[in-house]
Amino acid sequence: MGVVIRNIERPDPAIVAALGECGVATIHEAQGRTGLLASHMRPIFAGVRLAAPAITVSLPAGDNWMIHVAVEQARTGDILVVAPTSPSTDGYFGELLATSLRARGIVGLAIDAGVRDVRELTEMQFPVWSKAVSAQGTVKETIGSVNVPVVCAGALVNPGDVVVADDDGVCVVRREAAADILEKARDRVAKEDETRRRLASGELSLDIYGMRERLAAKGLRYV
Amino acid sequence: MGVVIRNIERPDPAIVAALGECGVATIHEAQGRTGLLASHMRPIFAGVRLAAPAITVSLPAGDNWMIHVAVEQARTGDILVVAPTSPSTDGYFGELLATSLRARGIVGLAIDAGVRDVRELTEMQFPVWSKAVSAQGTVKETIGSVNVPVVCAGALVNPGDVVVADDDGVCVVRREAAADILEKARDRVAKEDETRRRLASGELSLDIYGMRERLAAKGLRYV
Amino acid sequence: MGVVIRNIERPDPAIVAALGECGVATIHEAQGRTGLLASHMRPIFAGVRLAAPAITVSLPAGDNWMIHVAVEQARTGDILVVAPTSPSTDGYFGELLATSLRARGIVGLAIDAGVRDVRELTEMQFPVWSKAVSAQGTVKETIGSVNVPVVCAGALVNPGDVVVADDDGVCVVRREAAADILEKARDRVAKEDETRRRLASGELSLDIYGMRERLAAKGLRYV
Amino acid sequence: MGVVIRNIERPDPAIVAALGECGVATIHEAQGRTGLLASHMRPIFAGVRLAAPAITVSLPAGDNWMIHVAVEQARTGDILVVAPTSPSTDGYFGELLATSLRARGIVGLAIDAGVRDVRELTEMQFPVWSKAVSAQGTVKETIGSVNVPVVCAGALVNPGDVVVADDDGVCVVRREAAADILEKARDRVAKEDETRRRLASGELSLDIYGMRERLAAKGLRYV
Amino acid sequence: MGVVIRNIERPDPAIVAALGECGVATIHEAQGRTGLLASHMRPIFAGVRLAAPAITVSLPAGDNWMIHVAVEQARTGDILVVAPTSPSTDGYFGELLATSLRARGIVGLAIDAGVRDVRELTEMQFPVWSKAVSAQGTVKETIGSVNVPVVCAGALVNPGDVVVADDDGVCVVRREAAADILEKARDRVAKEDETRRRLASGELSLDIYGMRERLAAKGLRYV
Amino acid sequence: MGVVIRNIERPDPAIVAALGECGVATIHEAQGRTGLLASHMRPIFAGVRLAAPAITVSLPAGDNWMIHVAVEQARTGDILVVAPTSPSTDGYFGELLATSLRARGIVGLAIDAGVRDVRELTEMQFPVWSKAVSAQGTVKETIGSVNVPVVCAGALVNPGDVVVADDDGVCVVRREAAADILEKARDRVAKEDETRRRLASGELSLDIYGMRERLAAKGLRYV
Repeated sequence: MGVVIRNIERPDPAIVAALGECGVATIHEAQGRTGLLASHMRPIFAGVRLAAPAITVSLPAGDNWMIHVAVEQARTGDILVVAPTSPSTDGYFGELLATSLRARGIVGLAIDAGVRDVRELTEMQFPVWSKAVSAQGTVKETIGSVNVPVVCAGALVNPGDVVVADDDGVCVVRREAAADILEKARDRVAKEDETRRRLASGELSLDIYGMRERLAAKGLRYV
Repeated sequence: MGVVIRNIERPDPAIVAALGECGVATIHEAQGRTGLLASHMRPIFAGVRLAAPAITVSLPAGDNWMIHVAVEQARTGDILVVAPTSPSTDGYFGELLATSLRARGIVGLAIDAGVRDVRELTEMQFPVWSKAVSAQGTVKETIGSVNVPVVCAGALVNPGDVVVADDDGVCVVRREAAADILEKARDRVAKEDETRRRLASGELSLDIYGMRERLAAKGLRYV
Repeated sequence: MGVVIRNIERPDPAIVAALGECGVATIHEAQGRTGLLASHMRPIFAGVRLAAPAITVSLPAGDNWMIHVAVEQARTGDILVVAPTSPSTDGYFGELLATSLRARGIVGLAIDAGVRDVRELTEMQFPVWSKAVSAQGTVKETIGSVNVPVVCAGALVNPGDVVVADDDGVCVVRREAAADILEKARDRVAKEDETRRRLASGELSLDIYGMRERLAAKGLRYV
Repeated sequence: MGVVIRNIERPDPAIVAALGECGVATIHEAQGRTGLLASHMRPIFAGVRLAAPAITVSLPAGDNWMIHVAVEQARTGDILVVAPTSPSTDGYFGELLATSLRARGIVGLAIDAGVRDVRELTEMQFPVWSKAVSAQGTVKETIGSVNVPVVCAGALVNPGDVVVADDDGVCVVRREAAADILEKARDRVAKEDETRRRLASGELSLDIYGMRERLAAKGLRYV
Repeated sequence: MGVVIRNIERPDPAIVAALGECGVATIHEAQGRTGLLASHMRPIFAGVRLAAPAITVSLPAGDNWMIHVAVEQARTGDILVVAPTSPSTDGYFGELLATSLRARGIVGLAIDAGVRDVRELTEMQFPVWSKAVSAQGTVKETIGSVNVPVVCAGALVNPGDVVVADDDGVCVVRREAAADILEKARDRVAKEDETRRRLASGELSLDIYGMRERLAAKGLRYV
Repeated sequence: MGVVIRNIERPDPAIVAALGECGVATIHEAQGRTGLLASHMRPIFAGVRLAAPAITVSLPAGDNWMIHVAVEQARTGDILVVAPTSPSTDGYFGELLATSLRARGIVGLAIDAGVRDVRELTEMQFPVWSKAVSAQGTVKETIGSVNVPVVCAGALVNPGDVVVADDDGVCVVRREAAADILEKARDRVAKEDETRRRLASGELSLDIYGMRERLAAKGLRYV
């Protein structure tokens, strides 16, 4: 406890950007249905899709001090991932911190707790995924750590991992696997384009995927 | 388990359409405050009001295979009602399935679980009422049933029952009772028009409904 | 139980209006992080910021009779604060009651329960903060009280207290403290303007607030 | 609404008693994993295992009047199944009602809401499965129905269906299927006895059930 | 914030003790179904019934410093009532603090948060009502207040109010009303004794309370 | 996905046993308030305190196949730690599996989901910590992994880490840190013995810990 890791490895920015275009559902499938944060992580406004390397923040419930510390460690293009060490819906983050993050080039926040000033954050179009909206303020009394591995909303996030987020939620991709997952995601997108075309023309997925035989083998009866 | 009922009775389409115009709150009142699905059933985007005959789907938690089966059983104008047999927030449904449903004329989905691709679903304006948004994918390993009675979000839904849904939630009307409930709903709407006019002019509901005497009889004191 | 207090003290309307401009997060901080209602109190549509004196309503779960009684006790500019005596998500309030409230000049509703007709309420732009949206109707059988102290969503609200509400939630300010809290809130706003300017220019809050020394004293290590 | 069905069909008491000996988990499996009430239905004290025909009660949230009505309709050996029409944790049932039920031979209660006097109920050893314990009292103002089909904790229960309950929760068996399900449950128990013996001797379920080949076919790798 | 009120008024100990014998459900009814804390307040072990004057503690989430302060303000026979200012399940209290409370004569704890060392607390038979059990420790960094009015689990508790607690939960009685409520509770107990006797003999509450006529007037139909 | 790691490192059994004697709250404190699983992880019966090396199991929601696979990988003295990849309350584990685990020397189970046969598990005194009790059965259709790092109830657990569990919940200690944490825990226990003695004699923690000056510095006022 009480450690700030200054230098972290970040993935190739081109790969990060390409992951962001794929979106959460595709990435989650491409990596074998792993890495998804809990579904209570919701965007405070709709329509954003992004990916960014994680600056991780571990802090005590009700205390946002380490977010202030983390800002200095982030670079342009990073996202903050904030995980309290016990459950909390307090508002750790608002418009002043968002102003600071934006000034430093940080592109978003994912926090397993609450945020406030959501009207101002929406006007700024500063993207946030959170568990709650709450005006409840926090203190600055107890230290935590920056850029250590954290469990955020049930998923392990290491500093430098790629966080992908959109209206479906938030997913994390291991830094080392980013290029591989991107390739799998693109394959998936390509296949889905063809499937979509066939479905749109009225073909049934039962036929496209050849499911009828296996359903019969499982004992499905039509009456 | 493992049964697909091919032929179901559907109510008169004109009655279904007319029920949709009344909306959930009115229909729920008109049938004696019964038939409402739990309030966690929320639309993924606001502004839709519809009614449609139900194609019901019972499936295991974490497995969306039977949705693929159900598509073939639906007709233009139907809505899918999907009920996992144990609680789940996984994402059983996304843009590809919505493409298929739309191609077959299915007008919406009510699912006591999660959906994904909500940005794409919103762009398509494909109406969905769900318990959650989650990118968590599902498998296709275990069969269930189509067009059997299901309990969805706490309400019994039979195949061919009318599902009414809008921004207030989802309500089910028994197929056999649809015409009768429509009549009661229209009576209610007519009465409410008159009440609304009087309230808008500043009259009090205490006077319109003649409540003062009964309140006094119950012992209400003004001090 | 069963009491309606007719005459309540209300705060200076100019102070009320000025509190509304400050917003919930600022007011909550200005009064030492007290008075916030639970974060489950969410607006049914975004973008409203208001303050108003509270007309309080205590009623049994599943019974909205006392809301009808309360309308008569409110004046132009008031807000209704409704607290069931046990947990409930039923829909106590809809478009007809909103029509009546608007006709009487009541500016909004905060209810620790559910509301319905949210599409119509949104079209009317009648502001509501609630725990749920539900079409589930209520009865008119059991009396409660109007303008007694209530606990609403975990906060004590006295009649005539100032309710401040916006997209961050709902906060209550004691009537007697309203002027004092306004002054503190304005001080806070002024200081934040300066801080925001410095943060926007890229300065770190670590430096603006002089946090580095205290962090070191707590044992924070940079590695 | 507002109907009491006086005469209901009940299943063979010998079959009911035999189902009770099998327990909830076995019965639930024997009928294809259907009929289970939600897992929030917990016994107020441990160690009871019973089965009984259901007297069903549909009542409004916060109102226990219909329980009083239902007592008269029950016979020795029945269980009351109580379902509020909207979510509630109030205490609908306590020691006085339990005294009345016991005097009439009713063997238990399953309620998707709260109960009170749990110390006294435990001393009486009157079995209750409920969602909550709460001293919050209820009113007697609005009627409901007795012996109509109800959805209780997510499961459809018809009057005369067999309710099986133990420390694992509550399960319902259709009256018409009771004999068939009992047979399946007994088959299951017999097979489990043999399996238990082999597992106790140290054999692995991988071998007993012959799972290794199918796991390999699914791609499981040992490293 | 940051105030300790040293001298509080306490009710007559004889009245407090007599209220404790009545139990939560009876007291809650006797005071018109008010004063009940939320049903998530559960005893960590069963079988205790007590009443005691409240020493109230308001503290920040995740910080138990003020409990240490409160111990000094309590007298033999008091109970601590602890309310965090935002939701928390952390473990604020364990066996060491219980040792201190017991040494000072404090008879119990009601906390709208978590406690730990429940095995040791059970062995000591130190009564606790809490929202959660959690080993999650807390800090001692931020002050709060002792013996100010608090909202605990949804109920207003003033210092010196009588807290009644048993297996059904926790209820608060205003200090000024304690004698009056006791009288009403005793009346209630006396009436219930007679009712219990009649119910035990097989009479129906429908007849004892004369409900049949009113049910018929409401439209209840027997078929 | 789909990997079983056969050989894992385990910590020194003497250290594991000694950690178990310290209990969850002490261990959690000794390692800087880290490693605690969410407080919804509750024992199915009270009174057990143990520590054991973790065999980790990652499996899909509603599918318990990998528990069968994991049994073969465990040794005498291990505990199974089971984490579904999405939220679930189904009953993955019952008396038959417990029989198998006991036959292989496995000492317990921690599962972020449900279990069933709790009466039989209690009679066997087989220790289980779970999120729910549910008779809802699971399928055996989809593979997962054994002895990979998992996030269970919000905490990262590696195979071979030490799981400490008692009536307060479940905590994980990294295998590499086990000896160090044990030393810190024993220091803590020794200090607490002295503190307990002083508190029991009536000394105040305010004095034992010398808190008065710091409270005054924070601005605490006694009135």
